Amino acid sequence: MESEEKTKEVTKESELRQDIVTGDWVVIATGRAKRPEAFVATDRIPAADEPDPFADLEESGQEKDVLVYRLPEGDWSLRVIPNKYPAFSRGKQTKDLSEGPYFAMSGAGYHEVIITRDPKRSLGELAIWQAAEVIDACQERYLDLMNKKSVNSIHIFHNHGKEAGASLPHPHSQLMAIPVVSPYMELELNGATRYYKSNKTRVYSVMVDYEVAHKKRVIFENEHFVAFCPFASRTAFEVWIVGKRPNPYFERITEEEKLACGEALRQALAALYGGLHDPAYNFYIHTAPCDGREYPYYQWHIEILPHTATWAGFELSTGIEVSLIQPEEAARHLRSMLSREGTP
Amino acid sequence: MESEEKTKEVTKESELRQDIVTGDWVVIATGRAKRPEAFVATDRIPAADEPDPFADLEESGQEKDVLVYRLPEGDWSLRVIPNKYPAFSRGKQTKDLSEGPYFAMSGAGYHEVIITRDPKRSLGELAIWQAAEVIDACQERYLDLMNKKSVNSIHIFHNHGKEAGASLPHPHSQLMAIPVVSPYMELELNGATRYYKSNKTRVYSVMVDYEVAHKKRVIFENEHFVAFCPFASRTAFEVWIVGKRPNPYFERITEEEKLACGEALRQALAALYGGLHDPAYNFYIHTAPCDGREYPYYQWHIEILPHTATWAGFELSTGIEVSLIQPEEAARHLRSMLSREGTP
Repeated sequence: MESEEKTKEVTKESELRQDIVTGDWVVIATGRAKRPEAFVATDRIPAADEPDPFADLEESGQEKDVLVYRLPEGDWSLRVIPNKYPAFSRGKQTKDLSEGPYFAMSGAGYHEVIITRDPKRSLGELAIWQAAEVIDACQERYLDLMNKKSVNSIHIFHNHGKEAGASLPHPHSQLMAIPVVSPYMELELNGATRYYKSNKTRVYSVMVDYEVAHKKRVIFENEHFVAFCPFASRTAFEVWIVGKRPNPYFERITEEEKLACGEALRQALAALYGGLHDPAYNFYIHTAPCDGREYPYYQWHIEILPHTATWAGFELSTGIEVSLIQPEEAARHLRSMLSREGTP
Repeated sequence: MESEEKTKEVTKESELRQDIVTGDWVVIATGRAKRPEAFVATDRIPAADEPDPFADLEESGQEKDVLVYRLPEGDWSLRVIPNKYPAFSRGKQTKDLSEGPYFAMSGAGYHEVIITRDPKRSLGELAIWQAAEVIDACQERYLDLMNKKSVNSIHIFHNHGKEAGASLPHPHSQLMAIPVVSPYMELELNGATRYYKSNKTRVYSVMVDYEVAHKKRVIFENEHFVAFCPFASRTAFEVWIVGKRPNPYFERITEEEKLACGEALRQALAALYGGLHDPAYNFYIHTAPCDGREYPYYQWHIEILPHTATWAGFELSTGIEVSLIQPEEAARHLRSMLSREGTP
């Protein structure tokens, strides 16, 4: 039944799909297509059995908290601390480090770690209020850092599992406030502006409206957010969470939206947890830069990339990713996880 | 002595370096800096002990050769065959597969495999003439495919080691002829044109001249090519091989240049083999598209990316890569491998 339907849908030809915002291409290589079950990682690298540096932050020589949220009974539930091994040097002023024809400058910025209390349970296993608390902390730190000298963009991301680059098993998100606007952000900002100029409408609204109306790729939806596998998914089981209210700036998320966003994020991660048996993944928030310019056609959103394949020569050379499952089939599989579970 | 010198050079601050062609940024996070020896992978995934499908191509049901090079005594030394699991559907015409607001088309193209005879020895362990033979075969296949209908760009790449996406241990390169120009290529083409317009000189010539004159990042050099760690290396120990004669089009490489290019490639890979103890890596040829347009300011070249780190949330979100060693120190380490060995 369902499996027959699935077989029918697998076309024999490869498909090149274009990202509606950036114009980038992905290949859905259905000639090599796999069933959803084939993406379950059977050889996850186990977490090292090392002491948890986040269990007792004072003990592990960490610097003072930047932010602490506490439960009514006084125990901490979320903490933000400076990263002990920062990729950017804190607060220092930007200095010219050019050499000959090349331009370089000091990597001044801020690098923080956002820690949820439970040392083992990942965001997809936590309660919705706990996921919402992470969103809340991200906003609070964003608002504090966005006006600092030398900060022009803020990047919030989360690595889950060693394969996805998580160096510690204790779940944590990271925030980097940096002096430049990233190349990927430029692509999205330029794409959003280009689309608006050609079509007199916002590309992210077109996308959200289409996905919500057709439901082929939707995994979860509430009043404020929709979680779906994008038409031009770069990795198998990629999921985006996009707000329904036009808003380029993550930091302007409302109280009600934070809860709804926490729910959508938690549900999407729970679907991945169930559907791919706790896969390694990365997710991040894409939001307009805080460089003092306006980006009216952009839409902040979350992108979740399960670690389902290795970037090899073709991807590294071209930036064109090859996915082995149709986003529609991936979405159906993930959606079925939530309907089975119900909404916790 | 040398180690003291190295210690002195390690700055405490992070550095943001800009790619002179694309404008992209990389972070050299010297706060987390590692010594060259720390990049030796201690946990390489061993190659599976499976039968080699390239040992007897007829036996393994492969299609007929596209190209065979033979030794004087008649044995094959290199073969090109169609990929059994192509990412692009061979030769079929491009068809519109758009849906709603999204654009898509059939992935028509060619996907071939270039196999060197020895099932175990990688390019860095082969003789120079064998590396040159691979370059020769790439050119021959390029010239055959570049004028095919629906082919607008041709991508040649090589994956070495499971961590870098090599699915088979038998060394092989791959060629994909595809209907679109890739996003990464667009960035380089636009960057080269932009630089020429601003500076009235070719950016790749500026780079080659500077590297050859200063030698800080050079690993190997012959009459026609220079191999160096780029100023804005995206991965630790990244190596580029760039020709000294301005030439946007790989397929126009001369006989003499093919030998020189084979030598530079073989030496760069040998330096990586020695310096990082046979690391996993990807390399690829970047060359101007064959879409009928002219790209006079571009320069074809080879980029070698050792698999020394995992792309995690920050890199996936921003396209800004974080490297943990200065390119100058990486180059010194690789260079020392060749001077120790001598030129084989």
